[in-house]
Amino acid sequence: MKTYEIQGGFGLDHVIASERPVPVPGPKDVLIKMRAVSLNYRDLGVIEGFYNPNLKLPLIPVSDGVGEVVALGEQASRFKIGDRVSAIFTQSWISGEPTQEGWVSTLGNPLDGLLAEYAVIREEGLVRIPEHLTDEEAAALPCAGVTAWHAIVEEGRVKAGDTVVVQGTGGVSLFALQFAKLHGANVIVTSSSNEKLERAKSLGADFGVNYSSNPDWDKAVLEHTDGRGADLIVDLGGAATLNRSLTALRVGGQISIVGILSGASVEGFNIVPAILKKARLQAINVGSRDMFEAMNRAIGQNTLRPAIDRVFPFEQAVDALHYLAKGTHFGKICIRF
Amino acid sequence: MKTYEIQGGFGLDHVIASERPVPVPGPKDVLIKMRAVSLNYRDLGVIEGFYNPNLKLPLIPVSDGVGEVVALGEQASRFKIGDRVSAIFTQSWISGEPTQEGWVSTLGNPLDGLLAEYAVIREEGLVRIPEHLTDEEAAALPCAGVTAWHAIVEEGRVKAGDTVVVQGTGGVSLFALQFAKLHGANVIVTSSSNEKLERAKSLGADFGVNYSSNPDWDKAVLEHTDGRGADLIVDLGGAATLNRSLTALRVGGQISIVGILSGASVEGFNIVPAILKKARLQAINVGSRDMFEAMNRAIGQNTLRPAIDRVFPFEQAVDALHYLAKGTHFGKICIRF
Amino acid sequence: MKTYEIQGGFGLDHVIASERPVPVPGPKDVLIKMRAVSLNYRDLGVIEGFYNPNLKLPLIPVSDGVGEVVALGEQASRFKIGDRVSAIFTQSWISGEPTQEGWVSTLGNPLDGLLAEYAVIREEGLVRIPEHLTDEEAAALPCAGVTAWHAIVEEGRVKAGDTVVVQGTGGVSLFALQFAKLHGANVIVTSSSNEKLERAKSLGADFGVNYSSNPDWDKAVLEHTDGRGADLIVDLGGAATLNRSLTALRVGGQISIVGILSGASVEGFNIVPAILKKARLQAINVGSRDMFEAMNRAIGQNTLRPAIDRVFPFEQAVDALHYLAKGTHFGKICIRF
Amino acid sequence: MKTYEIQGGFGLDHVIASERPVPVPGPKDVLIKMRAVSLNYRDLGVIEGFYNPNLKLPLIPVSDGVGEVVALGEQASRFKIGDRVSAIFTQSWISGEPTQEGWVSTLGNPLDGLLAEYAVIREEGLVRIPEHLTDEEAAALPCAGVTAWHAIVEEGRVKAGDTVVVQGTGGVSLFALQFAKLHGANVIVTSSSNEKLERAKSLGADFGVNYSSNPDWDKAVLEHTDGRGADLIVDLGGAATLNRSLTALRVGGQISIVGILSGASVEGFNIVPAILKKARLQAINVGSRDMFEAMNRAIGQNTLRPAIDRVFPFEQAVDALHYLAKGTHFGKICIRF
Repeated sequence: MKTYEIQGGFGLDHVIASERPVPVPGPKDVLIKMRAVSLNYRDLGVIEGFYNPNLKLPLIPVSDGVGEVVALGEQASRFKIGDRVSAIFTQSWISGEPTQEGWVSTLGNPLDGLLAEYAVIREEGLVRIPEHLTDEEAAALPCAGVTAWHAIVEEGRVKAGDTVVVQGTGGVSLFALQFAKLHGANVIVTSSSNEKLERAKSLGADFGVNYSSNPDWDKAVLEHTDGRGADLIVDLGGAATLNRSLTALRVGGQISIVGILSGASVEGFNIVPAILKKARLQAINVGSRDMFEAMNRAIGQNTLRPAIDRVFPFEQAVDALHYLAKGTHFGKICIRF
Repeated sequence: MKTYEIQGGFGLDHVIASERPVPVPGPKDVLIKMRAVSLNYRDLGVIEGFYNPNLKLPLIPVSDGVGEVVALGEQASRFKIGDRVSAIFTQSWISGEPTQEGWVSTLGNPLDGLLAEYAVIREEGLVRIPEHLTDEEAAALPCAGVTAWHAIVEEGRVKAGDTVVVQGTGGVSLFALQFAKLHGANVIVTSSSNEKLERAKSLGADFGVNYSSNPDWDKAVLEHTDGRGADLIVDLGGAATLNRSLTALRVGGQISIVGILSGASVEGFNIVPAILKKARLQAINVGSRDMFEAMNRAIGQNTLRPAIDRVFPFEQAVDALHYLAKGTHFGKICIRF
Repeated sequence: MKTYEIQGGFGLDHVIASERPVPVPGPKDVLIKMRAVSLNYRDLGVIEGFYNPNLKLPLIPVSDGVGEVVALGEQASRFKIGDRVSAIFTQSWISGEPTQEGWVSTLGNPLDGLLAEYAVIREEGLVRIPEHLTDEEAAALPCAGVTAWHAIVEEGRVKAGDTVVVQGTGGVSLFALQFAKLHGANVIVTSSSNEKLERAKSLGADFGVNYSSNPDWDKAVLEHTDGRGADLIVDLGGAATLNRSLTALRVGGQISIVGILSGASVEGFNIVPAILKKARLQAINVGSRDMFEAMNRAIGQNTLRPAIDRVFPFEQAVDALHYLAKGTHFGKICIRF
Repeated sequence: MKTYEIQGGFGLDHVIASERPVPVPGPKDVLIKMRAVSLNYRDLGVIEGFYNPNLKLPLIPVSDGVGEVVALGEQASRFKIGDRVSAIFTQSWISGEPTQEGWVSTLGNPLDGLLAEYAVIREEGLVRIPEHLTDEEAAALPCAGVTAWHAIVEEGRVKAGDTVVVQGTGGVSLFALQFAKLHGANVIVTSSSNEKLERAKSLGADFGVNYSSNPDWDKAVLEHTDGRGADLIVDLGGAATLNRSLTALRVGGQISIVGILSGASVEGFNIVPAILKKARLQAINVGSRDMFEAMNRAIGQNTLRPAIDRVFPFEQAVDALHYLAKGTHFGKICIRF
């Protein structure tokens, strides 16, 4: 089968089109013919060697994808031939709280990922996908969708009338925007681009702040909420945003720590406003299969459609990764097989 | 001022148009000129002597209403003249959990209610209301709205994709339907009238079951959910519905015990399915001021409009109570001053 | 190997000493040499045909036990030879919330139980046990211990200073008493025997009510709490106790619905006090592996010892079941191999 | 009456013995004859002008104290003459979540504090105190006790078997240690003094780490928990400790952000381990009256005694503040009237 591998070292130059035999499912596994994958910054981080310098190569990259069940292990009974399925990011995280052991079972690092014509996944590590979604839309869900669902719904417990701030317009951010709107919230989006703010509004955002022309976006949030502050802030910036997120938060509010787009090390992280506000900072790392299935029920019930920026053919997978690295996208970047 | 009182005994015949002096606000009180009230079954229960046989008469009935601030006590600072406000049902329940002491501070029993041209309420016991609502819509909120919000959002923690069953089409039920839809849920309504089911669908209900033609509504819920059962059931029937609610519930689901429309005493309440399903039965009794304000933010953010069945003039208040007793309404019955 | 089976029909007379070949572990299974089992009323209910009239016979009864790992499947890696382990009651319930599918994976019905010299259990369905426990004490944990932990800690969220009512002095009740005391609660025990109340006090109970001489135990609870009522009541009686549990509860309190010792069908279950108190009735059905392991950490940290009533040798297993049926025990009845 | 005031500027030199008339209670107030106060670092921060540079002077400092009710406002009914009571820290925070408005109602800044022979407090802002406590022990509760209770019990939801790390041996830390032990937890204390670690063990601590001789206290925690990490860490250090707290935490664990003893600004706060562990960082700021009363029930039920370091007479109040500033104490510093 055709695949891509990270070969011989780290970096985008080491992502090479390659061949492997079609894998054979074990007794409780499922063989999937891939239809589409979507890309995440984490895929780039793995390729660059940032996430795991000791990663064993060659490795098939990319964690998120959707495919069709084409063969079943002899004891596999959760799916049938022809089902359209997605693999969950942390293969061992089915339900409840995460475990220390989980991180050895994530796709695309250290396990082989899905940028290949076929993949074998244990049946416990798969979910069915809402029917109304295209393959590309379905491929967008596993990391970006589940992370946003976990932050907004499972830990954020968003409710109608809450004010939610979403930083940026990448994959997680737009899912967070959509899930918050699905629950009747008031959503504020920040971006460095007025055009992206307009597009966010077309997805339901109530208010936009351009942090490039108005770096004091935290004050804009306070003004927009009559001084009350936001109930929930999905922090994707990290180093450059966390202190401002605390300023923009209401007393008793919650910050979802999800991303490190501007760096992982916050200089001068100021604890005082956190204490004065009884703030909760809840870090989020994707989510469980239960969360994925709950999200799918929400998406199916409301025929919600993820925002897809652009779809590349399988042959241009490396171009797709370069395009992600540029960071100009709005929504998810996908690859079709 | 003009008012109505329960005078000389219990029963609708004892609700008498009367006169009282306009009350004078104490230091931390507010004088309100009433604009509209709404009726609840609880008002009938009080009038019939069912709720509190030792109630001290005469008493001004009716707990829910909206009015305009026309005078302030010397130390009252939360509102200003001209504000439109609603009184909270349990005057002492501001935040957090209910207390045993709360039940001596509920309006319309044992405290005087709002079926009068003016009312004095302590400033802590009032909330502002969303601007887009008419006075009648605003008057509908304090008991029916807050009860539904408490059941669906605060304790029910409804999320998009959940299946919620709402019994009947009275005030609480229609608010529950609307709040569940506001959060992206799949809503099933039961009724004995196909016409009311159609009207419920026009408010967003996804599915209706006529329990008159199909008494096994619990099985209809199971079928509609592919055997999974409902995540949350708002039980208003009581005696006739609670066992079926358990049948219709999913494993790990929740029943909000809200009403006793078919009786308060369940014959043969069967514990076994509750245990097998790890069911939660959460009784609900209106809610706190914090919940009322959170609900108002949701209603304001989403310009939601309560369902009003019919508005009577103040002079026909007793007719309005008789009309409520008939039980044919869909949504709230209001009285305009 | 020696075993007991329910053979040819239901009832204690159909529990027959028998022989089966020692089972062989599959790839992810573990072979356990049993050391001790403990008995639960549920074992009797299965044997009597009450729980599952369609149960496929012959079946090895009894769900709870402890043994030593003597062989591992080729892919089994969670345990090593010589580990002392217990099987979890619902073999598929590892973490998070229960599922509908769980009930086909419970030991002793419909799966074979542990009243046999050897058992094969999949490695995911086992836990290690605290070292300080004897085999009999360890065997007491899986149903009674986990049920009590689930009721008191996971859903009951007991905290120091809470008042907890525990009905009776069977296995679940005494664990509930011990776990509540471990968290600094004030514990009230009910019993029909003054002698058992004294023994409960020696395990830490603060107050005892003899419901035989004082049927109004609910009023005794109210008096003992200065009219406030109990924060948490573990209801094991069912039919005869549920209404009184509501009377004895504080406003905002919780009842754990755990047992049906006096019947499963409550005549005249009165909803009104539930609503007035905003009561929560939370049914409990054993628990997950995560809960079992959390409980074990608590037991290990505090070197807590379960109350064992009596230990029978394997040859007298049927006598042990008869003794359980008499209902005169205080704590767990065990069988040693 | 005799009192102390911060007069004419900030700093310990500006704490001056002074005279004021005995205050007169308003209609819903209570007059208290003070018996004892306890000191907190926050009192020093107020005196130094650190907390509120715009504080209006003169001001009576010190937030925590206990006294006897000696007069009642005409409408005050919650207490009677002779009751022993404590004032709650945030006078307006009765129940539920904190509010933005709360911070104008804290004692000792901006409201007058309790370092005076008499104080007038509104009746809603007082709680009764467990009888077994001395006046000095009772005076220790309002800030340090409630903060620890909030961190360990209300938000930390500690349960038996959890591992809790407590930093240092000041007032909050020792309450946290005691409350964690009251719930059956495994408690690790850090300190720069072996002698204080021994004293912490005599209060129940299971394990001590001297961070002076062993700066890698986080690794010591991991070792002591077999690599699992702590379930809950009460972080009082702030700048110097927060990153290490993340290292010492288990996957899915919680850090209570309570103090800033080593500085409020964390240089290089590293988000990555927070995300990998799905950490929750929950800031804590004292607590509500409901929490205070729940804590009192726990203290009363278990006859727990706070650790008192030293008691100064009223005449040596400034010495007591200097002694606090030295930071060598173990437990609370009190002043007796």
